[in-house]
Amino acid sequence: MEVKVMKNILGENDKIAEENRKLFREKNIFVVNLMGSPGSGKTSLLEKTLSALSEKINVAVIEGDLFTAKDAERIERQNVSVVQINTAGGCHLDAPMISRAAESLDLDKIDLLIVENVGNLVCPAEFDVGENVKAVVLSITEGDDKPLKYPLIFKESAVTLLNKIDLLEFTNFNLESAREDLTTLHPGLKIIETSCTKNLGLEDWTNWLLEQINFPA
Amino acid sequence: MEVKVMKNILGENDKIAEENRKLFREKNIFVVNLMGSPGSGKTSLLEKTLSALSEKINVAVIEGDLFTAKDAERIERQNVSVVQINTAGGCHLDAPMISRAAESLDLDKIDLLIVENVGNLVCPAEFDVGENVKAVVLSITEGDDKPLKYPLIFKESAVTLLNKIDLLEFTNFNLESAREDLTTLHPGLKIIETSCTKNLGLEDWTNWLLEQINFPA
Repeated sequence: MEVKVMKNILGENDKIAEENRKLFREKNIFVVNLMGSPGSGKTSLLEKTLSALSEKINVAVIEGDLFTAKDAERIERQNVSVVQINTAGGCHLDAPMISRAAESLDLDKIDLLIVENVGNLVCPAEFDVGENVKAVVLSITEGDDKPLKYPLIFKESAVTLLNKIDLLEFTNFNLESAREDLTTLHPGLKIIETSCTKNLGLEDWTNWLLEQINFPA
Repeated sequence: MEVKVMKNILGENDKIAEENRKLFREKNIFVVNLMGSPGSGKTSLLEKTLSALSEKINVAVIEGDLFTAKDAERIERQNVSVVQINTAGGCHLDAPMISRAAESLDLDKIDLLIVENVGNLVCPAEFDVGENVKAVVLSITEGDDKPLKYPLIFKESAVTLLNKIDLLEFTNFNLESAREDLTTLHPGLKIIETSCTKNLGLEDWTNWLLEQINFPA
Protein backbone atom coordinates (compact mmCIF):
# COMPACT_ATOMS: atom_id res chain seq x y z
CA MET A 1 0.00 0.00 0.00
CA GLU A 2 2.70 2.42 1.01
CA VAL A 3 4.76 1.50 -2.04
CA LYS A 4 1.80 2.22 -4.27
CA VAL A 5 1.29 5.71 -2.84
CA MET A 6 5.01 6.43 -3.25
CA LYS A 7 4.90 5.28 -6.86
CA ASN A 8 1.96 7.53 -7.61
CA ILE A 9 3.67 10.56 -6.11
CA LEU A 10 6.87 9.88 -8.05
CA GLY A 11 4.89 9.18 -11.22
CA GLU A 12 3.25 12.59 -11.02
CA ASN A 13 6.56 14.28 -10.26
CA ASP A 14 8.31 12.55 -13.16
CA LYS A 15 5.56 13.61 -15.56
CA ILE A 16 6.00 17.27 -14.66
CA ALA A 17 9.78 16.87 -14.69
CA GLU A 18 9.53 15.72 -18.30
CA GLU A 19 7.38 18.74 -19.14
CA ASN A 20 9.96 21.01 -17.50
CA ARG A 21 12.77 19.33 -19.43
CA LYS A 22 10.88 19.74 -22.71
CA LEU A 23 10.27 23.43 -22.00
CA PHE A 24 13.90 24.06 -21.08
CA ARG A 25 15.11 22.22 -24.20
CA GLU A 26 12.83 24.30 -26.42
CA LYS A 27 14.31 27.41 -24.85
CA ASN A 28 17.88 26.09 -25.22
CA ILE A 29 18.46 26.20 -21.49
CA PHE A 30 20.88 23.78 -19.85
CA VAL A 31 19.73 22.93 -16.34
CA VAL A 32 21.91 21.80 -13.44
CA ASN A 33 20.40 20.44 -10.23
CA LEU A 34 23.01 21.31 -7.58
CA MET A 35 22.75 19.23 -4.42
CA GLY A 36 24.69 18.64 -1.20
CA SER A 37 24.53 18.65 2.60
CA PRO A 38 23.71 21.81 4.55
CA GLY A 39 26.90 23.85 4.63
CA SER A 40 28.74 21.92 1.94
CA GLY A 41 29.31 25.27 0.21
CA LYS A 42 26.74 25.23 -2.59
CA THR A 43 25.91 28.94 -2.42
CA SER A 44 29.53 30.08 -2.20
CA LEU A 45 30.33 27.89 -5.17
CA LEU A 46 27.40 29.39 -7.01
CA GLU A 47 28.65 32.92 -6.31
CA LYS A 48 32.06 32.05 -7.76
CA THR A 49 30.42 30.29 -10.72
CA LEU A 50 28.23 33.28 -11.55
CA SER A 51 31.09 35.71 -11.23
CA ALA A 52 33.15 33.60 -13.68
CA LEU A 53 30.38 32.89 -16.20
CA SER A 54 28.08 35.87 -16.23
CA GLU A 55 30.14 37.80 -18.78
CA LYS A 56 30.11 34.86 -21.18
CA ILE A 57 26.62 33.44 -20.89
CA ASN A 58 23.26 34.23 -19.30
CA VAL A 59 22.82 32.37 -16.05
CA ALA A 60 19.76 32.25 -13.83
CA VAL A 61 19.32 30.59 -10.47
CA ILE A 62 16.48 28.93 -8.56
CA GLU A 63 17.21 28.75 -4.85
CA GLY A 64 15.60 26.10 -2.66
CA ASP A 65 15.48 26.47 1.10
CA LEU A 66 13.07 25.46 3.85
CA PHE A 67 12.90 29.04 5.09
CA THR A 68 14.55 32.47 4.54
CA ALA A 69 15.65 34.20 1.33
CA LYS A 70 19.27 34.45 2.51
CA ASP A 71 20.69 32.56 -0.43
CA ALA A 72 18.63 34.41 -3.05
CA GLU A 73 19.81 37.69 -1.57
CA ARG A 74 23.43 36.56 -1.91
CA ILE A 75 22.86 35.50 -5.52
CA GLU A 76 21.00 38.69 -6.42
CA ARG A 77 24.12 40.70 -5.59
CA GLN A 78 25.72 38.99 -8.61
CA ASN A 79 23.18 40.72 -10.88
CA VAL A 80 21.66 37.45 -11.91
CA SER A 81 17.97 36.53 -12.16
CA VAL A 82 17.06 34.47 -9.13
CA VAL A 83 13.87 32.94 -7.74
CA GLN A 84 13.69 31.74 -4.15
CA ILE A 85 11.53 28.71 -3.37
CA ASN A 86 10.71 28.19 0.30
CA THR A 87 9.59 24.64 0.95
CA ALA A 88 8.30 25.56 4.43
CA GLY A 89 9.87 22.50 5.98
CA GLY A 90 9.98 20.28 2.89
CA CYS A 91 13.24 18.38 2.50
CA HIS A 92 13.73 18.59 -1.27
CA LEU A 93 12.65 20.45 -4.41
CA ASP A 94 10.26 18.71 -6.77
CA ALA A 95 9.26 19.22 -10.39
CA PRO A 96 6.03 21.20 -9.73
CA MET A 97 8.01 23.73 -7.63
CA ILE A 98 10.48 24.24 -10.48
CA SER A 99 7.63 24.54 -12.97
CA ARG A 100 6.07 27.37 -10.92
CA ALA A 101 9.43 29.07 -10.29
CA ALA A 102 10.24 28.99 -14.00
CA GLU A 103 7.18 31.16 -14.68
CA SER A 104 8.98 34.02 -12.93
CA LEU A 105 12.02 33.78 -15.23
CA ASP A 106 12.49 35.20 -18.72
CA LEU A 107 13.34 31.87 -20.31
CA ASP A 108 14.28 33.43 -23.66
CA LYS A 109 17.25 35.09 -22.01
CA ILE A 110 18.80 32.15 -20.18
CA ASP A 111 21.57 29.79 -21.33
CA LEU A 112 22.22 28.06 -18.04
CA LEU A 113 19.82 27.56 -15.14
CA ILE A 114 21.28 26.36 -11.87
CA VAL A 115 18.85 24.97 -9.32
CA GLU A 116 20.34 24.99 -5.83
CA ASN A 117 18.44 22.28 -4.01
CA VAL A 118 17.62 22.10 -0.29
CA GLY A 119 20.69 21.20 1.80
CA ASN A 120 20.22 17.46 2.17
CA LEU A 121 22.32 14.53 1.01
CA VAL A 122 19.35 12.13 0.84
CA CYS A 123 15.94 13.23 -0.45
CA PRO A 124 16.82 15.63 -3.31
CA ALA A 125 18.51 12.78 -5.21
CA GLU A 126 15.17 10.98 -5.45
CA PHE A 127 13.30 13.75 -7.25
CA ASP A 128 13.83 14.62 -10.91
CA VAL A 129 13.07 18.32 -11.37
CA GLY A 130 13.60 18.34 -15.14
CA GLU A 131 17.35 18.98 -15.04
CA ASN A 132 19.90 17.91 -17.64
CA VAL A 133 22.44 16.90 -15.03
CA LYS A 134 22.67 16.56 -11.29
CA ALA A 135 25.81 17.76 -9.51
CA VAL A 136 26.71 17.10 -5.88
CA VAL A 137 28.93 19.12 -3.58
CA LEU A 138 30.65 17.15 -0.81
CA SER A 139 32.79 19.19 1.53
CA ILE A 140 36.01 17.72 2.87
CA THR A 141 34.88 18.49 6.43
CA GLU A 142 31.95 16.04 6.05
CA GLY A 143 34.29 13.03 5.98
CA ASP A 144 35.41 10.48 3.41
CA ASP A 145 32.83 7.88 4.48
CA LYS A 146 29.94 9.79 2.91
CA PRO A 147 29.94 8.32 -0.64
CA LEU A 148 29.29 4.78 0.64
CA LYS A 149 26.80 5.97 3.26
CA TYR A 150 24.78 8.09 0.83
CA PRO A 151 25.37 6.28 -2.48
CA LEU A 152 22.31 7.36 -4.49
CA ILE A 153 23.23 11.03 -4.78
CA PHE A 154 26.71 10.16 -6.06
CA LYS A 155 25.33 7.60 -8.50
CA GLU A 156 22.79 10.08 -9.85
CA SER A 157 25.22 12.97 -10.26
CA ALA A 158 27.34 13.57 -13.35
CA VAL A 159 29.90 15.44 -11.30
CA THR A 160 31.05 15.50 -7.67
CA LEU A 161 32.74 18.62 -6.33
CA LEU A 162 35.04 17.84 -3.40
CA ASN A 163 34.74 21.27 -1.86
CA LYS A 164 36.66 23.08 0.91
CA ILE A 165 39.74 21.20 -0.29
CA ASP A 166 41.80 23.91 1.47
CA LEU A 167 40.72 22.39 4.81
CA LEU A 168 42.08 18.95 3.90
CA GLU A 169 45.13 19.28 6.15
CA PHE A 170 42.95 20.01 9.21
CA THR A 171 40.85 16.86 8.80
CA ASN A 172 41.47 13.11 8.55
CA PHE A 173 39.73 12.96 5.15
CA ASN A 174 41.39 10.31 2.99
CA LEU A 175 41.24 11.72 -0.54
CA GLU A 176 42.45 8.57 -2.23
CA SER A 177 39.90 6.38 -0.48
CA ALA A 178 37.04 8.82 -1.20
CA ARG A 179 37.98 8.96 -4.90
CA GLU A 180 38.13 5.17 -5.01
CA ASP A 181 34.69 4.81 -3.38
CA LEU A 182 33.18 7.41 -5.72
CA THR A 183 34.60 5.71 -8.80
CA THR A 184 33.43 2.29 -7.60
CA LEU A 185 29.91 3.63 -7.04
CA HIS A 186 29.86 5.54 -10.30
CA PRO A 187 32.45 4.62 -12.92
CA GLY A 188 33.22 7.62 -15.12
CA LEU A 189 32.05 10.14 -12.52
CA LYS A 190 33.72 13.52 -13.00
CA ILE A 191 35.43 14.56 -9.74
CA ILE A 192 36.69 18.10 -9.20
CA GLU A 193 38.48 19.35 -6.09
CA THR A 194 37.40 22.90 -5.30
CA SER A 195 37.92 25.66 -2.78
CA CYS A 196 36.01 28.92 -2.90
CA THR A 197 38.23 30.63 -0.32
CA LYS A 198 41.48 29.68 -2.11
CA ASN A 199 40.02 29.75 -5.65
CA LEU A 200 40.99 26.19 -6.46
CA GLY A 201 39.44 24.03 -9.16
CA LEU A 202 36.79 26.60 -10.04
CA GLU A 203 37.96 26.94 -13.63
CA ASP A 204 37.73 23.17 -14.12
CA TRP A 205 34.16 23.36 -12.90
CA THR A 206 33.10 26.35 -14.99
CA ASN A 207 34.86 24.94 -18.07
CA TRP A 208 32.96 21.70 -17.54
CA LEU A 209 29.70 23.68 -17.41
CA LEU A 210 30.61 25.56 -20.62
CA GLU A 211 31.41 22.25 -22.34
CA GLN A 212 27.96 20.95 -21.41
CA ILE A 213 26.32 23.85 -23.20
CA ASN A 214 28.79 23.68 -26.10
CA PHE A 215 30.22 27.10 -25.37
CA PRO A 216 33.91 27.52 -26.26
CA ALA A 217 35.77 27.83 -22.93
CA MET B 1 -5.96 14.26 0.84
CA GLU B 2 -2.16 14.42 1.07
CA VAL B 3 -2.39 16.05 4.48
CA LYS B 4 -4.63 13.24 5.68
CA VAL B 5 -2.20 10.54 4.57
CA MET B 6 0.66 12.41 6.25
CA LYS B 7 -1.34 12.68 9.46
CA ASN B 8 -2.06 8.98 9.45
CA ILE B 9 1.57 8.08 8.97
CA LEU B 10 2.64 10.45 11.74
CA GLY B 11 -0.20 9.23 13.95
CA GLU B 12 0.98 5.64 13.64
CA ASN B 13 4.58 6.67 14.28
CA ASP B 14 3.64 8.71 17.34
CA LYS B 15 1.67 5.80 18.77
CA ILE B 16 4.68 3.50 18.56
CA ALA B 17 6.96 6.28 19.83
CA GLU B 18 4.81 6.48 22.97
CA GLU B 19 5.06 2.72 23.40
CA ASN B 20 8.85 2.94 23.07
CA ARG B 21 8.95 5.78 25.58
CA LYS B 22 6.85 3.79 28.05
CA LEU B 23 9.12 0.75 27.69
CA PHE B 24 12.29 2.80 28.15
CA ARG B 25 10.82 4.54 31.21
CA GLU B 26 9.91 1.19 32.78
CA LYS B 27 13.49 0.07 32.24
CA ASN B 28 14.90 3.35 33.63
CA ILE B 29 16.63 4.17 30.35
CA PHE B 30 17.20 7.77 29.33
CA VAL B 31 17.06 8.13 25.54
CA VAL B 32 18.77 10.79 23.44
CA ASN B 33 17.95 11.22 19.75
CA LEU B 34 21.17 12.65 18.29
CA MET B 35 20.70 14.45 14.99
CA GLY B 36 22.70 16.58 12.57
CA SER B 37 23.89 16.97 8.97
CA PRO B 38 26.08 14.36 7.30
CA GLY B 39 29.59 14.95 8.59
CA SER B 40 28.65 17.25 11.46
CA GLY B 41 30.66 14.91 13.71
CA LYS B 42 27.96 12.86 15.44
CA THR B 43 29.89 9.59 15.48
CA SER B 44 33.16 11.15 16.67
CA LEU B 45 31.24 12.91 19.41
CA LEU B 46 29.64 9.62 20.33
CA GLU B 47 33.04 7.92 20.56
CA LYS B 48 34.26 10.62 22.95
CA THR B 49 31.01 10.44 24.93
CA LEU B 50 31.22 6.68 25.35
CA SER B 51 34.85 6.81 26.36
CA ALA B 52 34.01 9.40 29.04
CA LEU B 53 30.83 7.77 30.35
CA SER B 54 31.24 4.03 30.01
CA GLU B 55 33.04 3.62 33.34
CA LYS B 56 30.27 5.49 35.16
CA ILE B 57 27.08 4.24 33.54
CA ASN B 58 25.90 1.67 31.03
CA VAL B 59 25.45 3.21 27.61
CA ALA B 60 24.06 1.57 24.47
CA VAL B 61 23.82 2.96 20.96
CA ILE B 62 21.47 2.58 18.01
CA GLU B 63 23.12 3.71 14.77
CA GLY B 64 21.03 4.90 11.84
CA ASP B 65 22.46 5.04 8.34
CA LEU B 66 21.12 4.57 4.84
CA PHE B 67 23.77 1.96 4.12
CA THR B 68 26.95 0.44 5.64
CA ALA B 69 27.74 -0.54 9.23
CA LYS B 70 30.75 1.80 9.38
CA ASP B 71 29.44 3.75 12.37
CA ALA B 72 28.39 0.69 14.35
CA GLU B 73 31.87 -0.78 13.80
CA ARG B 74 33.43 2.39 15.19
CA ILE B 75 31.12 2.31 18.22
CA GLU B 76 31.67 -1.40 18.84
CA ARG B 77 35.38 -0.72 19.40
CA GLN B 78 34.29 1.20 22.53
CA ASN B 79 32.97 -2.08 24.02
CA VAL B 80 29.42 -0.78 24.03
CA SER B 81 26.26 -2.57 22.88
CA VAL B 82 25.33 -1.22 19.47
CA VAL B 83 22.64 -1.99 16.90
CA GLN B 84 22.95 -0.74 13.33
CA ILE B 85 19.78 0.20 11.47
CA ASN B 86 20.12 0.52 7.70
CA THR B 87 17.25 2.50 6.25
CA ALA B 88 18.17 1.41 2.68
CA GLY B 89 17.72 4.93 1.36
CA GLY B 90 15.30 6.22 3.99
CA CYS B 91 16.10 9.74 5.19
CA HIS B 92 15.29 9.39 8.90
CA LEU B 93 14.71 6.90 11.71
CA ASP B 94 11.16 6.29 12.86
CA ALA B 95 9.61 4.77 15.97
CA PRO B 96 8.97 1.26 14.51
CA MET B 97 12.66 0.98 13.56
CA ILE B 98 13.69 1.84 17.13
CA SER B 99 11.15 -0.60 18.51
CA ARG B 100 12.65 -3.43 16.45
CA ALA B 101 16.24 -2.42 17.24
CA ALA B 102 15.47 -2.32 20.98
CA GLU B 103 14.61 -6.02 20.84
CA SER B 104 18.30 -6.73 20.23
CA LEU B 105 19.41 -4.85 23.34
CA ASP B 106 19.47 -6.07 26.95
CA LEU B 107 17.30 -3.26 28.28
CA ASP B 108 17.83 -4.24 31.91
CA LYS B 109 21.50 -3.30 31.62
CA ILE B 110 21.21 0.16 30.04
CA ASP B 111 21.13 3.58 31.75
CA LEU B 112 21.54 5.72 28.68
CA LEU B 113 20.57 4.91 25.09
CA ILE B 114 21.88 7.20 22.37
CA VAL B 115 20.20 6.96 18.98
CA GLU B 116 22.39 8.39 16.23
CA ASN B 117 19.95 9.40 13.55
CA VAL B 118 20.55 9.49 9.78
CA GLY B 119 22.72 12.44 8.76
CA ASN B 120 20.07 14.95 7.74
CA LEU B 121 19.15 18.37 9.15
CA VAL B 122 15.53 18.16 7.98
CA CYS B 123 13.53 14.94 8.17
CA PRO B 124 14.71 13.35 11.46
CA ALA B 125 13.33 16.32 13.41
CA GLU B 126 9.82 15.42 12.26
CA PHE B 127 9.79 11.89 13.69
CA ASP B 128 9.47 11.11 17.38
CA VAL B 129 11.24 7.81 18.06
CA GLY B 130 10.34 7.65 21.75
CA GLU B 131 13.32 9.64 23.01
CA ASN B 132 13.43 11.77 26.16
CA VAL B 133 15.36 14.55 24.45
CA LYS B 134 16.56 15.44 21.00
CA ALA B 135 20.06 16.86 20.56
CA VAL B 136 21.46 18.43 17.40
CA VAL B 137 25.07 18.70 16.28
CA LEU B 138 25.87 21.68 14.03
CA SER B 139 29.44 21.88 12.83
CA ILE B 140 31.09 25.26 12.49
CA THR B 141 32.04 24.42 8.90
CA GLU B 142 28.35 24.26 7.94
CA GLY B 143 27.90 28.01 8.38
CA ASP B 144 26.12 30.31 10.81
CA ASP B 145 23.02 30.66 8.59
CA LYS B 146 21.80 27.13 9.32
CA PRO B 147 19.63 27.76 12.44
CA LEU B 148 17.30 30.13 10.56
CA LYS B 149 17.30 27.96 7.44
CA TYR B 150 16.50 24.72 9.31
CA PRO B 151 14.59 26.01 12.34
CA LEU B 152 12.57 22.94 13.32
CA ILE B 153 15.49 20.78 14.38
CA PHE B 154 16.83 23.54 16.65
CA LYS B 155 13.39 24.19 18.11
CA GLU B 156 12.86 20.50 18.83
CA SER B 157 16.26 19.92 20.43
CA ALA B 158 17.02 20.47 24.11
CA VAL B 159 20.68 21.04 23.32
CA THR B 160 22.72 22.23 20.34
CA LEU B 161 26.36 21.21 20.08
CA LEU B 162 28.39 23.69 18.03
CA ASN B 163 30.96 21.16 16.94
CA LYS B 164 34.38 21.45 15.26
CA ILE B 165 34.82 24.70 17.16
CA ASP B 166 38.58 24.29 16.58
CA LEU B 167 37.98 25.15 12.90
CA LEU B 168 36.34 28.49 13.74
CA GLU B 169 39.36 30.54 12.72
CA PHE B 170 39.41 28.97 9.24
CA THR B 171 35.80 29.88 8.49
CA ASN B 172 33.66 33.01 8.45
CA PHE B 173 31.24 31.53 10.99
CA ASN B 174 29.88 34.29 13.23
CA LEU B 175 29.50 32.68 16.63
CA GLU B 176 27.66 35.59 18.20
CA SER B 177 25.09 35.76 15.42
CA ALA B 178 24.55 31.98 15.45
CA ARG B 179 24.02 31.99 19.21
CA GLU B 180 21.58 34.89 18.86
CA ASP B 181 19.58 33.10 16.15
CA LEU B 182 19.49 29.88 18.17
CA THR B 183 18.28 31.66 21.28
CA THR B 184 15.64 33.58 19.31
CA LEU B 185 14.36 30.35 17.78
CA HIS B 186 14.47 28.46 21.05
CA PRO B 187 14.70 30.50 24.26
CA GLY B 188 16.45 28.49 26.95
CA LEU B 189 18.21 26.20 24.47
CA LYS B 190 21.40 24.73 25.93
CA ILE B 191 24.33 25.52 23.62
CA ILE B 192 27.70 23.79 24.02
CA GLU B 193 30.79 24.47 21.89
CA THR B 194 32.66 21.23 21.26
CA SER B 195 35.69 19.88 19.45
CA CYS B 196 36.51 16.19 19.35
CA THR B 197 39.99 16.73 17.93
CA LYS B 198 40.95 19.31 20.58
CA ASN B 199 38.82 17.82 23.40
CA LEU B 200 36.84 21.02 23.99
CA GLY B 201 33.45 21.23 25.68
CA LEU B 202 33.09 17.47 25.96
CA GLU B 203 32.89 17.51 29.74
CA ASP B 204 30.08 20.09 29.63
CA TRP B 205 28.22 17.75 27.29
CA THR B 206 28.77 14.55 29.29
CA ASN B 207 27.97 16.35 32.56
CA TRP B 208 24.76 17.58 30.98
CA LEU B 209 23.91 13.98 30.04
CA LEU B 210 24.67 12.76 33.57
CA GLU B 211 22.46 15.51 35.00
CA GLN B 212 19.59 14.31 32.81
CA ILE B 213 19.79 10.84 34.32
CA ASN B 214 20.38 12.22 37.81
CA PHE B 215 23.83 10.72 38.08
CA PRO B 216 26.30 12.72 40.19
CA ALA B 217 28.87 14.17 37.76
